[in-house]
Amino acid sequence: MTERVCFKLRINPDFAEEYKERHASVWPEMLDALRAAGWRNYSLFLEPDGELTGYVECDDFASAQAAMAATAVNAEWQASMGKFFVGIDGGPDESMVPLEEVFHLD
Amino acid sequence: MTERVCFKLRINPDFAEEYKERHASVWPEMLDALRAAGWRNYSLFLEPDGELTGYVECDDFASAQAAMAATAVNAEWQASMGKFFVGIDGGPDESMVPLEEVFHLD
Repeated sequence: MTERVCFKLRINPDFAEEYKERHASVWPEMLDALRAAGWRNYSLFLEPDGELTGYVECDDFASAQAAMAATAVNAEWQASMGKFFVGIDGGPDESMVPLEEVFHLD
Repeated sequence: MTERVCFKLRINPDFAEEYKERHASVWPEMLDALRAAGWRNYSLFLEPDGELTGYVECDDFASAQAAMAATAVNAEWQASMGKFFVGIDGGPDESMVPLEEVFHLD
């Protein structure tokens, strides 16, 4: 079974270009960790005002999040990303709240 | 090649339940038309405030939109959906503006 997850985060739009550059060259170890943790077909979309929309497929999102949270590379990556985010408590990972899916067509 | 498209629309949150009911039983002819027009892995996510996020994969979004716009069933569907949307000029189809993809992991 595939769970499709959409979540929203917000970055400071002043750092949009730097955020894009960082995501054009995500550490290979981070990509490997995401794959190993079961994150599939994962995309991030950014709007000019800083709203960030994530879409990811996995067997179970809570488990995929927990598996990433257990990796050292994720802790390093999130620490290096902290300055971008606004309006969240804790790390960006904890703020990935799945939106309600109301329609799906395979 | 697959194009991944994320777009945002907004509905009147007073009609959220009716919107969900309508999307739990989309006309089979509408689903067939979407498939024939090349819309794949298409999901809609709804937030309590009425923000609607769409995610769809296709070979070419402009072509997939044009193919749907040429169908009679789409015109009927969109007309029946008109009352839900807020803040758009023209039909909801014309307001599906793709957001910028800044990251992707297969």
